[in-house]
Amino acid sequence: MNAPQLVERVRGGDRRALARAITLVENGAAELREIMAGLALHTGRARVVGFTGSPGVGKSTTTNAVVRAVRAKGLTVAVLAVDPSSPFTGGALLGDRVRMQEHATDPGVYIRSMANRGHLGGLSWATPHALRVLDAAGFDVILVETVGVGQAEVEIAGQADTTVVLCAPGMGDSVQAAKAGVLEVADVFAVNKADRDGAKVTLRELRQMVAMKDRDEAEWKPPIVMTVAAKDEGVDELWGRVEDHYAHLEESGELATRRRERARHEVQAIVLDLLRARMGGVGADSGLDGLAGEVAAGERDPYAAADLLLKELGADPGA
Amino acid sequence: MNAPQLVERVRGGDRRALARAITLVENGAAELREIMAGLALHTGRARVVGFTGSPGVGKSTTTNAVVRAVRAKGLTVAVLAVDPSSPFTGGALLGDRVRMQEHATDPGVYIRSMANRGHLGGLSWATPHALRVLDAAGFDVILVETVGVGQAEVEIAGQADTTVVLCAPGMGDSVQAAKAGVLEVADVFAVNKADRDGAKVTLRELRQMVAMKDRDEAEWKPPIVMTVAAKDEGVDELWGRVEDHYAHLEESGELATRRRERARHEVQAIVLDLLRARMGGVGADSGLDGLAGEVAAGERDPYAAADLLLKELGADPGA
Repeated sequence: MNAPQLVERVRGGDRRALARAITLVENGAAELREIMAGLALHTGRARVVGFTGSPGVGKSTTTNAVVRAVRAKGLTVAVLAVDPSSPFTGGALLGDRVRMQEHATDPGVYIRSMANRGHLGGLSWATPHALRVLDAAGFDVILVETVGVGQAEVEIAGQADTTVVLCAPGMGDSVQAAKAGVLEVADVFAVNKADRDGAKVTLRELRQMVAMKDRDEAEWKPPIVMTVAAKDEGVDELWGRVEDHYAHLEESGELATRRRERARHEVQAIVLDLLRARMGGVGADSGLDGLAGEVAAGERDPYAAADLLLKELGADPGA
Repeated sequence: MNAPQLVERVRGGDRRALARAITLVENGAAELREIMAGLALHTGRARVVGFTGSPGVGKSTTTNAVVRAVRAKGLTVAVLAVDPSSPFTGGALLGDRVRMQEHATDPGVYIRSMANRGHLGGLSWATPHALRVLDAAGFDVILVETVGVGQAEVEIAGQADTTVVLCAPGMGDSVQAAKAGVLEVADVFAVNKADRDGAKVTLRELRQMVAMKDRDEAEWKPPIVMTVAAKDEGVDELWGRVEDHYAHLEESGELATRRRERARHEVQAIVLDLLRARMGGVGADSGLDGLAGEVAAGERDPYAAADLLLKELGADPGA
């Protein structure tokens, strides 16, 4: 399957083509340029909803329950599970297979996990690229599930149209989440496992945090939904709040802003990656090796070396 | 304290100046350029030993025990604990305080944790910068301790002269570690908690993995040391193997190669960061915003946008 064929089949929603395209994204394959160019003009229709929260809050259970809720509305849905801290898919894929069982016979559901391997941040275009593939394939809704609450997770969640932050009682999660900057990206909060002790404490803490922030009257105030995803409780309400937020984005014009932000992130990541390859490529005739030797020997400081390298790349350091 | 004063005080080993310099590194402060330039010509003396391994293998206990072993040899030692997955120091700092108690009155020991906050990989110069500060301050040995076994941890550990990979019995760590590419960067293995069940299994697994790799006769073969760091057992032997490896690096000329590699990484990270700032800076007149809008609207593909942006930065995309 060459690139134009792959683009056509992805657009037709072909599962094998989808799987192959996302694997190419994972691997940073050379064909990506042609594939992304081919898909680019057929994107922008899907709603992207991010789910984040600490391990143990019930993220995959919640995502699964939301898949059911979205399907019940007659919408098609893709799930992209991203693990930004791991270079491997092994564990996540096992989880996928278990989850897939429920939806295996439903052509309106596609579930895929993606490792974000490679250089630190080197593949930070990977999530936007994968979203582009799923969007072009015609899914109405894409759920992006990230692992953990580190900075990487916050950034990936922040690329969604709507970001849902999950908490659970008794894990010190709510306060933790606020610290991790998750509060800044949350559009909707869900307190999952709400039938457990401490759910009300978590709810109160979140309410206080949401109340603390200054907002204009027109600004979106993140609602907090209580869910027991394992029993499908509160999940329709959760999806309702996500739809409210989407409507708010459309009315306020913020949807375009968020999507421009996602594209900005994607383009910037590509530029940095191209420059990194040019500096560090095997057999590249950049002066990096010689400069690194001088820096290591204490003969030149690293910033002076960086300035020289920038000049060599044709970019004026003083600009 | 201005930059030249700070440089002088760091070189004199002043603790407040050290703490301040590393905080400036953490925050990506503008003064870094001048400070690093001032320190650059006074570095290259310290031995840098990296410690990595999954949470629960006893990393800080081992580092602490190694500090005692190094001090017993009459060498001064700094510990840099890096958490590449967290933008915050909170937890690590608490750990520091506990650990500091033992060495609080010893002027030959300095312990500091550093968050690696900020953009994905954006501060990947942070660890080399911090090493530069501690090196210039005159410590004989710098122990770099990283958290987890993800790609980021492997990269940071790989910046050391010698990398020690810690395993523990019954955690499936050894196999896990091999998968994570840790085997590739390990110069010395330590099986910690070696008094527990399963230590021999872990030892055997590691031996098999080490044996599987093809090596020239002159090439270093990672030794495996059994330790019970909490009881100071095997720690002197561990340090002995680290010294053996250092001698090997010096004799083979590989020390210079590794240090050039670290400098290369540092310079490259600075260049990428300068370019990122130029593309994304508030009020920057780069065309990124406009291009991102076109990409978001499906009017231009992200790679074509990246090429235009590269041209604008003065770097020819075709180069």
